[in-house]
Amino acid sequence: MATVGFIGLGNMGGPMAANLVKADHKVTVFDLSEAALDQAREAGCAVASDVQSVTEGADFVISMLPADHHVEGVYLGDKGLKNVLDKNTLVIDCSTISAETVRKVAAELAESGIAFIDAPVSGGVGGAKAGTLTFICGGAETSVDRARDVLNAMGKNVFRAGDAGSGQVAKICNNMLLSVLMAGTSEALQLGIAHGLDAKVLSEIMLQSSGRNWTLEVYNPCPGVMDGVPSSNDYQGGFLVDLMAKDLGLAQQAALRSGASTPMGSLTLNLYRSWSQLGHGREDFSSIFKYVTPQMKK
Amino acid sequence: MATVGFIGLGNMGGPMAANLVKADHKVTVFDLSEAALDQAREAGCAVASDVQSVTEGADFVISMLPADHHVEGVYLGDKGLKNVLDKNTLVIDCSTISAETVRKVAAELAESGIAFIDAPVSGGVGGAKAGTLTFICGGAETSVDRARDVLNAMGKNVFRAGDAGSGQVAKICNNMLLSVLMAGTSEALQLGIAHGLDAKVLSEIMLQSSGRNWTLEVYNPCPGVMDGVPSSNDYQGGFLVDLMAKDLGLAQQAALRSGASTPMGSLTLNLYRSWSQLGHGREDFSSIFKYVTPQMKK
Repeated sequence: MATVGFIGLGNMGGPMAANLVKADHKVTVFDLSEAALDQAREAGCAVASDVQSVTEGADFVISMLPADHHVEGVYLGDKGLKNVLDKNTLVIDCSTISAETVRKVAAELAESGIAFIDAPVSGGVGGAKAGTLTFICGGAETSVDRARDVLNAMGKNVFRAGDAGSGQVAKICNNMLLSVLMAGTSEALQLGIAHGLDAKVLSEIMLQSSGRNWTLEVYNPCPGVMDGVPSSNDYQGGFLVDLMAKDLGLAQQAALRSGASTPMGSLTLNLYRSWSQLGHGREDFSSIFKYVTPQMKK
Repeated sequence: MATVGFIGLGNMGGPMAANLVKADHKVTVFDLSEAALDQAREAGCAVASDVQSVTEGADFVISMLPADHHVEGVYLGDKGLKNVLDKNTLVIDCSTISAETVRKVAAELAESGIAFIDAPVSGGVGGAKAGTLTFICGGAETSVDRARDVLNAMGKNVFRAGDAGSGQVAKICNNMLLSVLMAGTSEALQLGIAHGLDAKVLSEIMLQSSGRNWTLEVYNPCPGVMDGVPSSNDYQGGFLVDLMAKDLGLAQQAALRSGASTPMGSLTLNLYRSWSQLGHGREDFSSIFKYVTPQMKK
């Protein structure tokens, strides 16, 4: 049983904090939204009057925030938590942000003797609610090991990719690859359909052959092939096109900084951006299947 | 035990015919290469004096030829087998060619009452030797069922994708998707490596996450991550860049004919063509990993 301060109660953070309470951890939360705080209170969390107060007596401070500047704002600067955090507290940032910002925050906290890991997640809102998230961590091995118990209360897999920032790098590599699998599988299915093949039969053949990938296994983008996936629910729920576009933007930023060559990731960023601009940003990312539908079938 | 006529004893056809003999089928072969015929004779095949003679008393005629015009040349025209084939013979063409040519040959043979299926393979030269090929068939269900015994002597999976030509369509869909998996996995690994991640650790994380795909499972493109794959043998053996470029060309032809939108397959065709033009056509297709290596690391 740990004492946990939790900052950021959005679609992900809310259910994550609730799962910590279910696992008997003592959780104090902060968010700018009163509605989010009310919901957390109902779930059994204590509510802090300001962001600094979540750190009081905390074994862990966990944050789940939308973008780089929120994370910097919470931890650094004159009003940043780095000035009030105890040296015994381990900071776990679960936000998906740039590895650069992670390294900056980690380095400034380290100057004050405070340990920090980045632990971005995969698994989406469904995984956050069900407590089946995957955490991809960056930071010292001892810190990641220390975090395992609380992370396991919110998820089922904890990986360590390397030092601080590595969790973010591994996550964007994975999500860039995921976008490639999704777009590639969608157009392969569409090419077959356009030539008279049955989508279920073609899916099964590719699943048993060298085209096998996660999307064919559990997240088929063609409506009607698989039950219980967004494609069979009008592409509602799941992982939004706009969030995939955000992650692909982070991947391209990382590629630019390192001189890495990412022709496929560059293309999928542009496909997902265009698809969003056409009005599909709030649909599940498997809706890219519709984007590669032959003109004649639209 | 069937009587089989076999035409085309290249890197694939040679070992396929030998496996038919091992399964106690009676095999008569034809090829233009004397060396190939000698090898087939040693493997226990009878050698026909001309291509027409392989049809004599054959339950099955199997062909494994390099391109569309070879298949048309063997079966159609004045000297084509359609003039000598018996109505009880089932023709199985294992070549990878366009679905259009398949439908043309199938239709002309059907006029003479001769049943035909296309059965392109996946599994490469290794699979042909080991008898572990996958056959992706197109044609009448009764014909595909009739072919199963002889196909199983050369492989371990027999799929039926639909009517004549569907085997070719399913195969190019699969191989187009495979090229996307390979290029996407390669650049995701390279992006991680460029940011200091260990290729083995990143491979394992993506394998357990939504980036999972066949290349991470059995054919990792990064040297040293996996034993016994081309990337750990200087990209020798396996499935050649030039053959992938050929299949991607067939995929783009099919996309053009149907109006299908294949942005990813169009990009991988160009990547594989360029990589071949840079002198890597005879390397395994996982060598695309080298093509996306950051400049600084070359």
